[in-house]
Amino acid sequence: MAEVPVYDYETVLETVSPLAAIERVRDGFVRYASGEWAMPPKVYLAVPPAGDFRAMPATGGGLAILKWVTSFPGNPARGLPVVMGMICVSSAETGEPLALVDVRAVTALRTGAVAVVAAQELGREDAHSVGIVGCGLHGAWAARCLAAAEFGAGVCFDLDPEAAGALAGELGWEAGAREDALACDVVTCVTPGHEPVVHAGDITPGTHFNMLGADGPGKAEAELDALDRCRLFCDEWAQASHGGELTGAVAAGRVTRDDVTELGAVLTGAAEGRTAPDDATLFDSTGLAIQDLALCHAVLESGAKVPTIRL
Amino acid sequence: MAEVPVYDYETVLETVSPLAAIERVRDGFVRYASGEWAMPPKVYLAVPPAGDFRAMPATGGGLAILKWVTSFPGNPARGLPVVMGMICVSSAETGEPLALVDVRAVTALRTGAVAVVAAQELGREDAHSVGIVGCGLHGAWAARCLAAAEFGAGVCFDLDPEAAGALAGELGWEAGAREDALACDVVTCVTPGHEPVVHAGDITPGTHFNMLGADGPGKAEAELDALDRCRLFCDEWAQASHGGELTGAVAAGRVTRDDVTELGAVLTGAAEGRTAPDDATLFDSTGLAIQDLALCHAVLESGAKVPTIRL
Repeated sequence: MAEVPVYDYETVLETVSPLAAIERVRDGFVRYASGEWAMPPKVYLAVPPAGDFRAMPATGGGLAILKWVTSFPGNPARGLPVVMGMICVSSAETGEPLALVDVRAVTALRTGAVAVVAAQELGREDAHSVGIVGCGLHGAWAARCLAAAEFGAGVCFDLDPEAAGALAGELGWEAGAREDALACDVVTCVTPGHEPVVHAGDITPGTHFNMLGADGPGKAEAELDALDRCRLFCDEWAQASHGGELTGAVAAGRVTRDDVTELGAVLTGAAEGRTAPDDATLFDSTGLAIQDLALCHAVLESGAKVPTIRL
Repeated sequence: MAEVPVYDYETVLETVSPLAAIERVRDGFVRYASGEWAMPPKVYLAVPPAGDFRAMPATGGGLAILKWVTSFPGNPARGLPVVMGMICVSSAETGEPLALVDVRAVTALRTGAVAVVAAQELGREDAHSVGIVGCGLHGAWAARCLAAAEFGAGVCFDLDPEAAGALAGELGWEAGAREDALACDVVTCVTPGHEPVVHAGDITPGTHFNMLGADGPGKAEAELDALDRCRLFCDEWAQASHGGELTGAVAAGRVTRDDVTELGAVLTGAAEGRTAPDDATLFDSTGLAIQDLALCHAVLESGAKVPTIRL
């Protein structure tokens, strides 16, 4: 029986800065793309009508993690988060449980961090302005990570003007209309994905789009005609084609494997990223367990003093 | 952020008796077979050379669980258990984490419990004597559960005579030779599965065999010619055909889906169990997340006062 440290929400956010998260997530993508880290497909456990649980394993750098997390879209209406659960961290060498880590903080940070990695890698070299479409928890953390990486100023849009105003105020950015957000250099969409928020006419040459919101079949933040106008990237094809922004386009036969480049391949130089300043690029982030693993390494290396449990 | 109770090894064993475990596991099989409970296939995360992790989700009765567990066969040589990890229990209705439960106690109890359910359902009506082949942690709990259900007396065999002697002494049974154990009415094998311990000549008419040890490709406790002489049962065909006692026979084309009956189908009356007193029956237990779920219900309903963590 071991004493297992428990890193809660506040501890994760205190010990891993946005800049550290960005570097860790970039490193995780490189290690996964180069075959050093491994990640089986995530498993879905449907619990209708509430939503589903996902079990997301990954291993690398001596750790093996399992993220156990909900996507319960109706939860905010009853005062609960969409994302709940925990991350179990074990030693890949001995199997011993090493830590329990808060799932909400890690998910928010690693989702924001990949938006920055994609923008740095796929955006125009002179990209600076940021449009945030959807200012909930993950939209806010994407904005914080982009600001930490010296993107901005930005325009925050949300159907709830208070959410947009609060985020804009925190970062010294502006709240604005959807059109104003979409006119920025780096557009980051984090909406529920029930209705497209990016239409074909919104695709300006040179813009980079991060699509973070659609996380399951039937969800999309961009209409199909908008995808036609972009060079397409994703975190992982297997997930993107089955439960991400591109899923509908793949099902409709409008997008195939050859049309989409994985971010890790761009980071390792195995594939081309942006080819010209007036390319419109679009990154489909579905969320990978290797991103969570990357942040768990940072949390465990922090040496933070936390409560333990016997398990 | 919730206060999540943590049920450790001792608490699980104090709050769930072998008899309660048997009833819960039987109930879990019935609910799963009738479609009330759900369980996606387990996911393997290989971490060579140590072994692998398994992520095992299941849902039913308002709970959703994820078992995160190792199979590290070399661990005992360095003083660590083969089975390590934890069980995350969440509400299937709200997604909230409800508990963390010790994985070793639940795994040992539910593995022992299913041996009893199979013996009660598939053994001869007058079966009483018990042979235990392999007296490690899971062999010992199988013996304890069988004794609690009034099977016995028994014969305990292990390559390590001290392990056999200790278990026999605890239960008032005898330590004996492999052949003595195999001559009993209910034979329960819990060995690593690297070498067969049941040969064709060991199959006596009327005997029921529980095969609990083989848990992955290349492992088996009975040789193929022994399987030919038995009516075959398993906990779940998908797992048994890919990572259990029957896997080698399926790969060799010696056993097909039609040759094997799932225990749940026997329990619900959808399929036939033993048909005659001189049938030899063999049950391949691979271990299902619904068994863990069944025991988690018992643990959470116990009302045991335990420490909590904020998560």
